[in-house]
Amino acid sequence: MIFSSVGMIPVMSSDSQQGTTTIRVRYAECDPMGVVHHAVYPIWFEIGRTELLRETGLTYRELEEAGVYLAVVDLSVKYRRPARYDDLLTLKTTWNDSGRVKITHDYELLRHGECLATGRTTLACLDKEGGIRPLPESLMIGNTDEN
Amino acid sequence: MIFSSVGMIPVMSSDSQQGTTTIRVRYAECDPMGVVHHAVYPIWFEIGRTELLRETGLTYRELEEAGVYLAVVDLSVKYRRPARYDDLLTLKTTWNDSGRVKITHDYELLRHGECLATGRTTLACLDKEGGIRPLPESLMIGNTDEN
Amino acid sequence: MIFSSVGMIPVMSSDSQQGTTTIRVRYAECDPMGVVHHAVYPIWFEIGRTELLRETGLTYRELEEAGVYLAVVDLSVKYRRPARYDDLLTLKTTWNDSGRVKITHDYELLRHGECLATGRTTLACLDKEGGIRPLPESLMIGNTDEN
Amino acid sequence: MIFSSVGMIPVMSSDSQQGTTTIRVRYAECDPMGVVHHAVYPIWFEIGRTELLRETGLTYRELEEAGVYLAVVDLSVKYRRPARYDDLLTLKTTWNDSGRVKITHDYELLRHGECLATGRTTLACLDKEGGIRPLPESLMIGNTDEN
Repeated sequence: MIFSSVGMIPVMSSDSQQGTTTIRVRYAECDPMGVVHHAVYPIWFEIGRTELLRETGLTYRELEEAGVYLAVVDLSVKYRRPARYDDLLTLKTTWNDSGRVKITHDYELLRHGECLATGRTTLACLDKEGGIRPLPESLMIGNTDEN
Repeated sequence: MIFSSVGMIPVMSSDSQQGTTTIRVRYAECDPMGVVHHAVYPIWFEIGRTELLRETGLTYRELEEAGVYLAVVDLSVKYRRPARYDDLLTLKTTWNDSGRVKITHDYELLRHGECLATGRTTLACLDKEGGIRPLPESLMIGNTDEN
Repeated sequence: MIFSSVGMIPVMSSDSQQGTTTIRVRYAECDPMGVVHHAVYPIWFEIGRTELLRETGLTYRELEEAGVYLAVVDLSVKYRRPARYDDLLTLKTTWNDSGRVKITHDYELLRHGECLATGRTTLACLDKEGGIRPLPESLMIGNTDEN
Repeated sequence: MIFSSVGMIPVMSSDSQQGTTTIRVRYAECDPMGVVHHAVYPIWFEIGRTELLRETGLTYRELEEAGVYLAVVDLSVKYRRPARYDDLLTLKTTWNDSGRVKITHDYELLRHGECLATGRTTLACLDKEGGIRPLPESLMIGNTDEN
């Protein structure tokens, strides 16, 4: 049986793009409380948006090779119920808006349909020197202004 | 020369407790952009509040041994400037309020006085079974109601 | 398309059990050299042996729930070529021997058939108090003496 | 009181250089067994050799800025006793030999004088493109041939 930790079943909608990733909790991601440490969730969110981007036919690796960097400038997470070792989780990632230089993603982490956590990140588009630059056309997909 | 990553110089005030921790950036904490990965900041915040608690004469380890667990239920971080490998950073942690079952901390990460990031966490007090329980008296220090 | 990071295609042989896991390199697993940090490989090895165990119809989570703990007492890794961000890697895990209280696994990490690293771990079987205890029958699978 | 996690008290000898670093165990470094996860030790070893290098008047950051990269090509760890959350540990790092392109370090992790783990790493000297290059003179310190 194949479990996916980075697979993506994209669900398109008129003004956003959404995808689902399955994540198997690693032992090293859990703490002495026997639950996933809170600092792991941002790493999973990064996987969610990476796989959502891949579904658009683009990879973040290609973006960096082209000199386009996306840096997290804002992060928020609400932890509702603990995730545990070996849980098979579902991460719903929504690319809900793109500005001229920023992208916002929303995340919902589920276990058998039960919401464990929600989160939001804002990415800023940078050049190789770390200066702000406009998002390339290829990253305007989620932009409501574009739809 | 001794650099502290967990030392604490507490600064008391009428309605809060604040402390400063020095953190040396580890190579493993940095990513291909050559800067600290955003998921590392919550780990540093945890160090900040742990050392601030230690200054009150209590350790989180003792709390868990006594069946008192503090779980992060809310996290937010604003990333302003990148931290880099080998930077010697100053983390200011403020224990700015305690409720009946929750504690809020604010964080400011500085490099030579320049603010790199700010953050806030809310902790909920849990028992060994993971159920909400009132904060013990010993954790009421930061509570304005107590001052 | 579904990529597996924890899937397992077991290959049985007379005196060992072997399985293959696919791992997608995470951004947070890479360092300023632009390659996977060397401390990440032991985490992947843990995934490899966890999934190999799952293929035997047992999960490590169930073992711990039954009071059986497997602790790494010996680790060695040879790094031959760097793994890079977003690489899709193949991890071959071989459960090549079980003693009375220890299990040895060998690992081979591949990218498109090219060997990037090899490793070996030895696990000791512990009880809830951390004392050495005999391996349960269910973990004798790989033991050549048993075959 | 100030605890050092990266301080270094160097002890010179005729054919090696040795230093001691104090490490406070972070909560995020511990796993559901309530002990430090085995993949954390290589990160501590990296701190140990980084601080030992600093004592020679050189920093690894400066080396990379000069186009000299040190990549781990071999790692081994023996885990004897578990390290626990909030432990204050002593890491003894010995720079015991330098070859023409490689450096070997030995590590001993102690808690109140009790050995918890030992390890060894071999680093290869690389240029910016990842090709093998000779060690610069400044890294020949530990080389017995040089003494």
